Amino acid sequence: MQFIILFGGNSYEHEVSIVSAITLKKELKNISHFIFLDSINSLYLIPNNKMTSKHFSTFAYKKDSKIEFCPSGFLKKGFLKSEVIRGIVINLVHGKMGEDGMLASIFNFYDIKFIGPRNEACVVSFNKEYGKVYAKYRGVNVLNYEALQNTTKIEPNLINHLASKLPLIFKPARLGSSIGISIAKNENEIAYALDSALEFDDTIIIESFIPNIKEYNLAGALIDNEFKFSIIEEVNKGEYLDFEKKYLDFGARNLELDSKNQTKTPSDSKDLIKNQFKNLTQDSTQFLQSHNESSTNKVKKKEANISEELKNKIKESFKKIYLNCFEGSLIRCDFFVIENEVYLNEINPIPGSMAHYLFDDINAILNKLATNIPKVKNIKIQYKYISKIQAHKGK
Amino acid sequence: MQFIILFGGNSYEHEVSIVSAITLKKELKNISHFIFLDSINSLYLIPNNKMTSKHFSTFAYKKDSKIEFCPSGFLKKGFLKSEVIRGIVINLVHGKMGEDGMLASIFNFYDIKFIGPRNEACVVSFNKEYGKVYAKYRGVNVLNYEALQNTTKIEPNLINHLASKLPLIFKPARLGSSIGISIAKNENEIAYALDSALEFDDTIIIESFIPNIKEYNLAGALIDNEFKFSIIEEVNKGEYLDFEKKYLDFGARNLELDSKNQTKTPSDSKDLIKNQFKNLTQDSTQFLQSHNESSTNKVKKKEANISEELKNKIKESFKKIYLNCFEGSLIRCDFFVIENEVYLNEINPIPGSMAHYLFDDINAILNKLATNIPKVKNIKIQYKYISKIQAHKGK
Repeated sequence: MQFIILFGGNSYEHEVSIVSAITLKKELKNISHFIFLDSINSLYLIPNNKMTSKHFSTFAYKKDSKIEFCPSGFLKKGFLKSEVIRGIVINLVHGKMGEDGMLASIFNFYDIKFIGPRNEACVVSFNKEYGKVYAKYRGVNVLNYEALQNTTKIEPNLINHLASKLPLIFKPARLGSSIGISIAKNENEIAYALDSALEFDDTIIIESFIPNIKEYNLAGALIDNEFKFSIIEEVNKGEYLDFEKKYLDFGARNLELDSKNQTKTPSDSKDLIKNQFKNLTQDSTQFLQSHNESSTNKVKKKEANISEELKNKIKESFKKIYLNCFEGSLIRCDFFVIENEVYLNEINPIPGSMAHYLFDDINAILNKLATNIPKVKNIKIQYKYISKIQAHKGK
Repeated sequence: MQFIILFGGNSYEHEVSIVSAITLKKELKNISHFIFLDSINSLYLIPNNKMTSKHFSTFAYKKDSKIEFCPSGFLKKGFLKSEVIRGIVINLVHGKMGEDGMLASIFNFYDIKFIGPRNEACVVSFNKEYGKVYAKYRGVNVLNYEALQNTTKIEPNLINHLASKLPLIFKPARLGSSIGISIAKNENEIAYALDSALEFDDTIIIESFIPNIKEYNLAGALIDNEFKFSIIEEVNKGEYLDFEKKYLDFGARNLELDSKNQTKTPSDSKDLIKNQFKNLTQDSTQFLQSHNESSTNKVKKKEANISEELKNKIKESFKKIYLNCFEGSLIRCDFFVIENEVYLNEINPIPGSMAHYLFDDINAILNKLATNIPKVKNIKIQYKYISKIQAHKGK
């Protein structure tokens, strides 16, 4: 079995996806091809030895072979003959396109086998509002929240209403990183937080902000009707787990400082976002350096020191989320624990570098998962209905 | 402005989509192209004068030009030069592919403008389970229901539980027609009804069956921030409104008779389904004949004779469903009314022939809707993050 890693995409997490693919290259043995989706939806076949971040940031990839989707794979056109590249795709496009269902739909249309969330799974995890509704429906706790639309007028009543629920965290509904996330601890921070989040999405989620909340991550997949779980990791806010987590932590911390030290008004939000990006980048540099080091030294994460009972509760919540929706994908769920009760924070349907750092043997997991890919049901069309009408009409 | 009608698709409603396109051809003036998606996902450009049902049922379409998706349209390759076919696509693929988000995703990937539900809207309307959850979340009533998975064991406890709630109607979660739908009025019909629905989907919806319930249909779209509504039509079970409605009515009636006159066991279900298909076809013939006649004579539907208060309640429910999800599409919602309360029955995100029979001027509606298509947000990717890392590493 050979894997094709598809990465990139027109997403705020485009660059994260590149780093994720470079990382997975070191971890997964049987990768035959790397396919890069650039920011304008063109596909390029990247030679294995060119899988460096510079190859993309300098646009050198544009000299590589341009390919396109075709039935059962990717078409590489040649002067004399064309070739169809086939294999099991690992969808490693984080955020928009990869996690919103677009690529899942395209793979199914072209009959390309892939590891990753199917379309319905994407919609209930990429959009945080639908994610909340879905989790509650599946019997998994979520923190209290409200969803607001960009059509909502920011009036004194709304501000007063939100002020009665402080502290709050404001998140754009459809972004996987920290962009647009703000914390409001007092009333005069609310208008800015609303404004900041609404710049990035038509829908925003406002939820209770609980400082120092206990957080646990668990990755897994359903393989041969059994769940294969990673270790459960306790998120230590002082270290960085993976890209999304990193972004989120950082953005939150950063904005806390910002709101303490500055008196921002909504009109200043673009500056603040610029700062966020700047700080995010500096911090990410640090992260990537430590991350590269850890992948070289094979430093794996340690199982959280919690009771078996709590571990089981976390696993049961994961199963409720996953079953009958996320089949075919390896996902990571991030949970909060408050007074021994488990709450879903968020679903990462395509975790950074497939959360390899949480598994003993990511090769075995992905190779087995590749044999458990849901089939698309094809319907046989026989024109019985139209033929009957025609017969009736004497045509 | 020129419209491209895309129809067909690998769906149980493939043939319905063909008839829907033929009907819309008579109603909509500015159609430049008809594009047929056949049962194996090939696209054909159908000359306007070949838009007859026979052209498809005899497979004569296979001699027409084969085309493919390409950036901003459809590529028609020629010996000397190739042509890109452009226009506003009306997604008229009913059921799977058209209504499950697959085509919406492909249109967005290739930057093709279209009228029809976007991906999230598809997921919350095509899957009846998610539709129920979505409607409730949006504050719209739905009938009591339970969802069952194919992993559920059909045990005496389950049968007893369901028997306490009779009469019930059983529906596959993701089928737009009557296929697989059964009504159980007494306990010995439950096992068969479960079996019959589970043959067509992994998930089934079981809801209260209320004979002679009042049903009203309303179609509409958001255009320039205002709702343009059709008339509200009372569904008269004796006549046929459109394809989906027709199918549903018919299937239900048919199964009622079946369960009265026959003692079916689960192993007989295939026969019964065959009968369902047969009867459906006979009945549809009648429908199509009357339908063709009515489109020639421009017989339009009449507004329901109900209070203004109830009409407003129905419209308010429609708005709650539509807003911030169905933008860019013309949908039809089917509502039940019980004791002056409105309940959503189902959302048709691509109604048969765009529900033209409910509007005074479908041309005006669709042409205006075409100027209200949601834009896909493109993210500018600048490699600031990776460049920063590289600078830090001194590369």
